[in-house]
Order: sequence, then structure tokens, then C-alpha cells
Amino acid sequence: MTVVNGTSEMMKPESVSLHPLGAAAAPVPEMLCIFGTGDLGRSLGLRLLQSGYRVVYGSRRPHSCGPLPQGSQVMSHEAAAQSASLIFICVHREHYGFLETMAPHLAGKVLVDLSNNLKKGIYPEPNAAYLQRLVPGAAVVKGLNTLSAWALQNGLLAGKQVYLWSLSAAGELEDFPLQLFPEWRLPLRVAVGLTAFFFFYLVIRDVIYGYVEQDKDISYRIMVSLANKVFPIVSLIMLALCYLPGGIAAFLQLYRGTKYRRFPDWLDRWMLCRKQMGLIALGLAFLHVIHTFMTPTRYSVRHKLITLVVDEMKNNKTTPFYFDNTEAWGQDSFYALGILGFFLYVLLGLTSLPSVGGSLSWREFNFIQLGHLTLFICTAHGYIYGWNKFLRPSTYKWYTPPGYMLCLIVPSVVLVLKALVLLPCVDRTLTRIRQGWERNQPTEEIGKVTNL
Amino acid sequence: MTVVNGTSEMMKPESVSLHPLGAAAAPVPEMLCIFGTGDLGRSLGLRLLQSGYRVVYGSRRPHSCGPLPQGSQVMSHEAAAQSASLIFICVHREHYGFLETMAPHLAGKVLVDLSNNLKKGIYPEPNAAYLQRLVPGAAVVKGLNTLSAWALQNGLLAGKQVYLWSLSAAGELEDFPLQLFPEWRLPLRVAVGLTAFFFFYLVIRDVIYGYVEQDKDISYRIMVSLANKVFPIVSLIMLALCYLPGGIAAFLQLYRGTKYRRFPDWLDRWMLCRKQMGLIALGLAFLHVIHTFMTPTRYSVRHKLITLVVDEMKNNKTTPFYFDNTEAWGQDSFYALGILGFFLYVLLGLTSLPSVGGSLSWREFNFIQLGHLTLFICTAHGYIYGWNKFLRPSTYKWYTPPGYMLCLIVPSVVLVLKALVLLPCVDRTLTRIRQGWERNQPTEEIGKVTNL
Amino acid sequence: MTVVNGTSEMMKPESVSLHPLGAAAAPVPEMLCIFGTGDLGRSLGLRLLQSGYRVVYGSRRPHSCGPLPQGSQVMSHEAAAQSASLIFICVHREHYGFLETMAPHLAGKVLVDLSNNLKKGIYPEPNAAYLQRLVPGAAVVKGLNTLSAWALQNGLLAGKQVYLWSLSAAGELEDFPLQLFPEWRLPLRVAVGLTAFFFFYLVIRDVIYGYVEQDKDISYRIMVSLANKVFPIVSLIMLALCYLPGGIAAFLQLYRGTKYRRFPDWLDRWMLCRKQMGLIALGLAFLHVIHTFMTPTRYSVRHKLITLVVDEMKNNKTTPFYFDNTEAWGQDSFYALGILGFFLYVLLGLTSLPSVGGSLSWREFNFIQLGHLTLFICTAHGYIYGWNKFLRPSTYKWYTPPGYMLCLIVPSVVLVLKALVLLPCVDRTLTRIRQGWERNQPTEEIGKVTNL
Repeated sequence: MTVVNGTSEMMKPESVSLHPLGAAAAPVPEMLCIFGTGDLGRSLGLRLLQSGYRVVYGSRRPHSCGPLPQGSQVMSHEAAAQSASLIFICVHREHYGFLETMAPHLAGKVLVDLSNNLKKGIYPEPNAAYLQRLVPGAAVVKGLNTLSAWALQNGLLAGKQVYLWSLSAAGELEDFPLQLFPEWRLPLRVAVGLTAFFFFYLVIRDVIYGYVEQDKDISYRIMVSLANKVFPIVSLIMLALCYLPGGIAAFLQLYRGTKYRRFPDWLDRWMLCRKQMGLIALGLAFLHVIHTFMTPTRYSVRHKLITLVVDEMKNNKTTPFYFDNTEAWGQDSFYALGILGFFLYVLLGLTSLPSVGGSLSWREFNFIQLGHLTLFICTAHGYIYGWNKFLRPSTYKWYTPPGYMLCLIVPSVVLVLKALVLLPCVDRTLTRIRQGWERNQPTEEIGKVTNL
Repeated sequence: MTVVNGTSEMMKPESVSLHPLGAAAAPVPEMLCIFGTGDLGRSLGLRLLQSGYRVVYGSRRPHSCGPLPQGSQVMSHEAAAQSASLIFICVHREHYGFLETMAPHLAGKVLVDLSNNLKKGIYPEPNAAYLQRLVPGAAVVKGLNTLSAWALQNGLLAGKQVYLWSLSAAGELEDFPLQLFPEWRLPLRVAVGLTAFFFFYLVIRDVIYGYVEQDKDISYRIMVSLANKVFPIVSLIMLALCYLPGGIAAFLQLYRGTKYRRFPDWLDRWMLCRKQMGLIALGLAFLHVIHTFMTPTRYSVRHKLITLVVDEMKNNKTTPFYFDNTEAWGQDSFYALGILGFFLYVLLGLTSLPSVGGSLSWREFNFIQLGHLTLFICTAHGYIYGWNKFLRPSTYKWYTPPGYMLCLIVPSVVLVLKALVLLPCVDRTLTRIRQGWERNQPTEEIGKVTNL
Repeated sequence: MTVVNGTSEMMKPESVSLHPLGAAAAPVPEMLCIFGTGDLGRSLGLRLLQSGYRVVYGSRRPHSCGPLPQGSQVMSHEAAAQSASLIFICVHREHYGFLETMAPHLAGKVLVDLSNNLKKGIYPEPNAAYLQRLVPGAAVVKGLNTLSAWALQNGLLAGKQVYLWSLSAAGELEDFPLQLFPEWRLPLRVAVGLTAFFFFYLVIRDVIYGYVEQDKDISYRIMVSLANKVFPIVSLIMLALCYLPGGIAAFLQLYRGTKYRRFPDWLDRWMLCRKQMGLIALGLAFLHVIHTFMTPTRYSVRHKLITLVVDEMKNNKTTPFYFDNTEAWGQDSFYALGILGFFLYVLLGLTSLPSVGGSLSWREFNFIQLGHLTLFICTAHGYIYGWNKFLRPSTYKWYTPPGYMLCLIVPSVVLVLKALVLLPCVDRTLTRIRQGWERNQPTEEIGKVTNL
């Protein structure tokens, strides 16, 4: 029996192989058997028929088992098993019992176990191992269980990897579909943690401070104003956290003088979820932008504007009506940087779409990785926001710095690290290390070989 | 002759098969013939050459037929036909006549008919059947006609299905490319119908009512204000219509006590266009959001604001300048829910992109199907909009309810259905039914087998 | 040796070929050798292992070469070379020297040269030719060098073409990954040129004119106001430039009376970058929209509004408070057209996503090519903007027309051309020409054949 080991794309083998068209006679297509007429069984059968195989279903009630794909046959389990040498088992593990009684009919057959469980670790052995124990005379392969009936039916398999593994790896493969966004877990936790921290920090500074010290009820700010402070803050920090591990890795390689030692585990894990961090940062930036666009229609903003005019008229003040060119420049620069930053954010997000990223050449992808530029623009956006506030004592309510100051720390560190790496002397050493050069290695003849 | 029956992906057969590289001598690639040097013929030839075949064109004027792909040959129709056993016919049906005179040269060949017609039913028989009648000695296959020259040239074939069918199905296949967005038709009709209804309903309530009863010309509202009422209304209803059939199906299964009976046809058709309904709802929500962002720059809105201030100053009223905390909370909650709802809408839209949806595991896809949450948030957004208006008599102009009230009916029904399905007792029964259990079935031994 | 000539998709050959599963005994998978344990070598090895091959690495230091894919072996270069007949060379060209000394071990082997250079033309001969000269006894194939380690590792190969070329074409293939967005170059140059021109033109008209003639410092406008004039202007011109070559081509075909003569080179090149022009136009339209949404929160806009009210109150003017229904209609129509235009722009952008465009049938794609409609709507948006300004003398500062007038020229020309092409008599002739009819051709029997 051949156990195809590893990943591959299914449903394309030999499909429109144009070769045989010229031949005189066509071979009769192979018959494949499917046990189980549920959603998965039906969808799989349809695809197999479309790929040129003949399909027979084994059913407990061959005459009333619901609609099956056109062109397939349906028989009793025994009869179906006899007519094929490869049998897909699309039945829940709980009901494998009947297969034991059928064992004599299954001897010498290849059984593909497609089952998944609802939770991890509810059975002592993987479903496939259990199946093998029930039918020792058959050869059991674990696989295709990562496909959903939905994806099969909707042809969403392009670019989708399926897995066919040997029995020994069956347990691992069965847990696979139960993992929920494994690479999203860490970034989401970081984002939720930062959001909660900044939310409470700003509630204290912006709402509770006003209530305690000035006796004002401005609790309505919790809904929109605070959100529009928390989202950009967390977004900028998340974006910086995308590029921090790269900086750390560069300095680690410089310090070690070689690229042949593994990074610590935490750094590896961090680097693997950078894309997800970036996408969360983009999502939060999107929320920030929408909140900002909503601002002028808000009741409190319109109220403030009206009050300003009326006060002005009543008290006959004239100061606010003097047009401050510096203020106009500052605010418009702030907006221009914000708009540019968001535009770059969206470009970054677009290149992370599988179909867009996959169509770029590697040099183009490197080039379009505008991440550090985006980070620079957005950080500058943050600095300009506070340029005329950071010296005012009123900024430091209860001696705490405002949120935008806190959120500028990590991005600033990342940008300084990047600037250091771009220094010619550092850059040259780093490039040599990444091409395989080692500081502590005697340079032998063969030592000159560097790898792509 | 082998007629490959069904769908498959083309242009990938045996391409970089690494195996033969080790072999000592390469076989000469097969020669394929193409009749017709138009866009489709040229693009197809290019792809065949790239896939390792040799290509010869048959042309009425071999010496002046325009640029052909590099590496191909061009001959008279007769000579080209002789050098290959498989001939692609890339010629309009109107000009098949010359093939009849060539019939002796085509005996025993396989002819692939790629032609499409401009309209349905303009010929009594499918093009392929007509071709077979003209050249009875050849074996005619219908196929590849769903490919466009444009897609062939631009390599847009990844994930694209091509069809190769037997003669008996040729008619159906020839109609295929003439269908325009078949699964979009029903959702678009529903959307257009709802939009037209609510547009006229609101024109009457908002414009004509004002003109008749208050003698005000506010017809300018038709352009933006009305659009910004109609779009969110229709969007919310369309989103609810995405999830209504799922609820109906659940209760149908509960009532019948089995999943083995087919749904009525109308329900099946409805369920098949849910994705399209959701995308139209997203498009309308997008329009609603843009309209809302434009609001404060509109002449009428600025005019109202200025009038408010001036009236205030002249009449020395003070009421509007009292800051109403409840109003601020209400409006900001309304905005916050709207923003969150739109964000979830966009997430839903992103997961429906083929390349994104295909890269999610089935459990992730189920999880990210945030549809009901989106519906709940958007419905709440609608309820808050009207929270302080639904008791005012002025709301019911000419005894009609306002549009936002009408649009909350269907979403509310869907959410109630969903809440019922989530009740533990209902959920448990439904899960058992979906795993194959039947209420009216005697439980035999083999009856325990449930299907994936 | 077989040199597979052309393009194809890799990593899918014979993968889950279901056929062999039924066989009694599996053949031992072929052993492939990789020289070099860098990022590319490791990623390639992983993919080859996943595709069912065995993999052995050749390394200068087999015992300390960092982490390699599970299941692979690592040996000295000599030992590794002996165990395989196909060797992937994942080593920088600078270090090919050691291969010369190994030449006897490599005789009769197939060497795949995957190397890229950092710049064009730094070596007199392609890397692959150099390699062949060093190891004359081996058969060198150039290829796979367009893959990045990053893409290999992340499975971004679906829809990606790889190239395997013969030695004679190696030079061309080595330059391939060094080309940076080749089809983006012309559109980007046009966009940058137009942006620079309109920026300086508007700086003169809007900022310098005010400073010189009215002694006002309104330089702050450079940041946001000017950007929001330049972006829509360039966006509209770029969109028109997408559709201009199609119009020119149609009239060229009409003039020549045949489609069998090639278009001039400049027209061909222009037509090849239409998609990129459209995407740049979309990006600029997106920037225009964001700038517009930001407008009401800007300091200068709020200042103007407040000044307007205060002046009004002080001088007791009443004119601005008269509600002008025509003005409201005009401005709302302007906005409605802008919103609709942007919506269509986004639809156009979505269909240009590879995964979306590839899933449409050709007729749907033609239909959704809403380009000319988008152009019409956006041009109307521009005309309405200026409808009540173009007769005022104050519009023509220093006798120059305003920017929006200049930007309407090209779109108007394109729309007129399109309208001419849609005239029944022109359309009929053009359709016949495109079906192969020629004005100056004697109609022979065989001349009736027209091509798809």
C-alpha cells in the first residue's frame, strides 16, 4: 500500500490530461466506494465523479438514503465494499461498530478514515487506529478530514492543502481541524490585553478625573470618544510589535556573529504571528478612521461648536476668530500624515491577501513590504498630535501621562532599532552574516560556500 | 475516444513532472492542431505550447494571418489536420461550412468544439451536434467554451473549472457562458424591488407630505437624504433574508423529525443565493456609511446649523444649549453600534473572498460566520435610532409607520427564530437529527450508523 | 535529459494521485539532492518532502548546518551527490568554485541552477552558463529562481507560475526576478508626472496668487486642500487613460478595415498596462474620498463656519440664511454622483483581484467591466462641480483655467469616442472587422471563415 506522506492538492490528478484523448480506447475509470451518505459523503462523491472516477455508496438503507450525486450507485455496505478496493469512511466514529462485523469483506482493502471528533482527547486512541483495530485485515489511511463538505461543494479547494498521513500521525491530524485560528491566538490576546488596559486607563483619566475634580458628567464619552482614543493607540502598538521581533533578531545575529544558531522559542513564536498582528492593527486603524469620520455629526461635537459661537457673541470675545496659520498647518499636517498612514496600512493589508501576495515576485514583495514606512508615518502622526500639549501641566492629570504618549514608546524603539540596522557598517555585517559568514569560524576553503 | 466527463482544472497536466528529468531521452511532445487564428485560437495555442505540446494552426491564409505564438507552425487547414489527431475548432459556427468539404481529412480525428453563440436558441441544434453532422467520421467533443481568450492570456485559470462534455450535453454547455450571474439574479431582483418600494414610500412620507401639508419644497432630499434612508433599510432586510432560510430549514427538520427529506424547491433556491444576498447587503451598507460621512459637508446640514445658532442669538433662547447627557449617550451608542456593525459586515465580506474563505479550516469558517452577531448589532442600531421617536404622533405621518420600523420586522423575526434554535432542548434535538437520527424510525442495529 | 520548456505550476505533480493506492507495493520515492542549507534550500526541501520525494542535503558542515526539514538527510557534498541524479544548486554564484573540484562526482547528473544575482549585468555570462562551464559533464537546467523561500514556506504557490528553461534562455530568466513591477512602471510614471504638474499648477493658482494679489498667507492649504484637488484630478485622468487606447484601437481598425495588422508598439504597451492605470486611479480616488470625509473636522473649515455666523450676527446680514433649493439640489447631486462613482470604482477594483476575476465567466466579466459607466459618472461629478463657476471671471486667476477644467478634457474625449463607437453603423462595421471581415479582401469561398 502506498501511503502518500504529506500535503498536496487534491482533485486535480490527471483530470484533463489531454494525452489519452488521442488513444483509441479509453480504460474504464476506477470504481471508488464511499461509506456514509451524509453531507461529506455526498460532496466527496460529487468531486470524485467530476474527477472521472466511478463512485458507489454503501448505505444501511440503499433505497431511502436521500439525494446522491448523479451518476453514482448505491448498494448495501457489503456489496459496495466488494466492488472497490479503496473505501472512504464518511461515518462518525461512534458508529464504527458495524465495520467490525464487516471485517471479512474489508480484508485487503484500503480504508480512508475521514472522521473528526468534536473535542480533543475524548478517546484514548485516534479514530484511525481504532478503525485499524476493528478491521485488522485492511490498510487504514488517515486523511482528507481537514476538508469540509462546504468547501468540497463550493469548489473552494484551489490553494487548499489536504493531508494524507500514516496511522502513526493520525492523532495529530485528527486534532488539526479542531484548532481554532492557532496563529491568531497570541496576537488576539495581546490586542485584547492592550485594549482593556488603555480603556481603563483612559476611563480614569478622561471620565473619572473630570467627575471627581471638576464635577462634570462626561460619561457619554465612553461610547465613541474613548474608543477613538483606544483603537489608534492599540493599533500603533500592534503595528510596532510586528516589526520589533525583526529588530531583535537582527541584533541577536549581530551579537552572536552567526545565523546558524536557533532563535529562542519565544522569538520564533512571535515572528510566526507577525502577519496576524499586522491585520489586527489594520482592523483597529480602520475602526479609528470610521470613528474620526463620524465625529462632526456627533451631538456633543455640534453642541460644543454652537456653544463656542454663542459664548463668543455674548461675551464679545474675538480671540478664537483670529485665524492661526500655525494651528492650521499643524492640524492639516496631522490629518495628512494620518491619511497617508491609513493608505499605506490598506496597501499592506491588500498584499497580505493570499491571491495578491502570491502573484508578486519576491523582489516586489520585499519592496511593497512598506511596513516600516507605515510605522514611521503613523508614529509621526502621533507625535504631531501631541506637539503643543506635552509641556502643558494640564496634560498630566493626576500625574499620569496621556495615552498617546504611552503608545509612542514601542514604535519609537522599533524605529530607532531599524535606523541602527540601516547604518552602513551594521548593515554590511548583517548581510554577511545572513549569507552564511560567521565571526568565530576559521575561514577554510569550503567555508566560502554561502547559501541562498 | 476518451470523453472526459465532468469538470477539472486545465493546463496543469504533467507540467513540471520532475520524474522524466532523470530519464535518458525525452519523448517528442504530441502535436495538437488549432483551426482559427482569432484571439481564442492564439491564446489557447500559447497555453498549449507552454504546457509542452507542439501546436500547428490551420488557416485559410497561412501566410498573412497575423501574429501567432512563438514556436507554433501555421499551414493550410488540410495540412494542419493531417499532422495531428486532436483538432481544436476555434471558428464561429456560421463558418463551419468549409469543414464539410474537409470531412475526408478529418475522419478518425477528435474535434473539440469551442464555439459559443451570442444568444440562446438561435439554432435548432447545438453547435457541436451540427459539427458532428457535417463531419460524421470524426469524434466531436464539446468543451472549453467557458474559457475566455482574456482569461487564457492572463493566466486567470487557477481555481477555474473547465468543462468537457459529451455530445448529448453539448446544448446545455453551450448555454452556460450565456448565463449572466445566474446565482445573482434572485438576490438582485429582491434588492431592486425593496429599494424601489422604500424609495417611493419615503418620497411620499418625507417629500410629498411636507409639500402638501406644510407647503415646503424639500425635494432636494431625494438625492442624498432619501438614499441614506433607503440603503440601510434594504441592507438590513437583505442581511436578515440571508439567515431566514437557515431558520426555516431548522424548524422544518424539527417538524419532520428527519433530515432525509428534501427541502421544498423554493427553500433550496433561496439557500443557494445567501452569499450573494449578503454581498448585496454589504454593498448597500457601504453606501450608507459613505452617505453618512458626507452628511456634515452638505449645504442643507450646514445651513440648518447656522440657522440654529442665529435663531438662538436673535431670540435669546437657551434650551438647545443645555447639554443633554442622555441625548449624547443615545446618539453615541447609536453610532458605536453602527460602526461595530459595519466592521463585522466588512469581515463577513472578506471571508467570502474565494482566496480568504478557501484558506480557513472548516471550524474557523464556522466560527467567523459572524452573520447572526452582525444582524443582531445592526438591528440594535436600528432600534436605538427610533427609541425616542416611536411614541411621538408626528412620527406617523398620514398614519404610516416610518421606514426604519418596517425594516426591523424581518430581522427581529430571524433573531427570534435563532434564539429559539439556541435553546438547549431544541438545539439537542436538532443536532441529533442532523447526525442522522430520525424520530419515526425504529432503531435497528444498522440504524446506528450516522454519517458525517 | 528532458528540459521542460515553458511555464507551469509546480508542487502538484502526482501528489494525491489516488491510483497507486490500490496497488500492492509502493515504489521507493525518488531521492533528490539539494546543495545549500540556506532559507531557499530548506524551504525547497520541505516542499519536495511533502510532495513525496526523499531529500538529501549536501553541506560543507553536515553536522552543524542549522535546522533542516524533518525527514531529510544531510551529508557531505560528495556523498549527497552520489545518492541522487537530480541536484538543486541553492548556493550563491560567488561560491560555485567548489563545484569545479567536484566535477567528477557530478558527471551525468542534472543540475538545477536556482541562483539569482543582485543586479543586472554584473557577470559576463548567466550563472547557469558559468555552472555548465565549471561542470561540463553535467546537464545544467536553469529554473525555479523566480520562487522565493518565503512563498515556498507559506504555500503561496497556487496560481504561481514557475519557469524551467534551457541554458540558452538562462540569462533572460535570471533577469526576471530583478524586474520590479515591470507593468507598473509606465502607469506610475504617468501618475507621478500628472501629480507633480497639477500640484505646482494649483500651488501657483491657489496659494501664490492669493499671496501676491491679495496678500493672504494661505500656505496651510498645501497639506490637505491641494491634495484633495490634485488626487481627484489625476484619478479621473488616469481612469480616462485606461479607456482611451481601446477607443484609439477601435478607430484604427475601422480606418484600416482589418484586424489582421498589428497595432503600433506604443499602443500595445499602453493597452498592457490598463489594469495598473485603473488601480492607481482607484487608489487616488480612495485618497480623495478620505480627504473629503476629513474636511468638516479641519480647523480652517470650522473657523470659516464660525466666522460666517459671527459676521452674520454682527452685520445683521440675512442673505446667507435664505435656503437656496437650487444650491441644495446642485450640491447633493454632486455628492450623489461622487458616491456612486466611488462605489463603481471599488467594484472595478474588486473584480481585478485575481481570485474574484478568475471566478467570473467571460460574459460576466465583460458585463462587470463597468469602466465606461464609472468614467461617465465621475466625469459628470466633475462637470457639476464647475457648473456655476465656469462663467465667473474670478475663476480664471492670472488667465489660467482651474484644475478641474483641465482634468475634464481627456475623459470627455474618451466618452465621445465611446459614444461614436456605440453608433449602430460604426458598431456593425467594427463587429464584422473583429469577426475577421476585411474591407479590401476579395471574398473567396474560404474567406468566409472567421475566427473566435
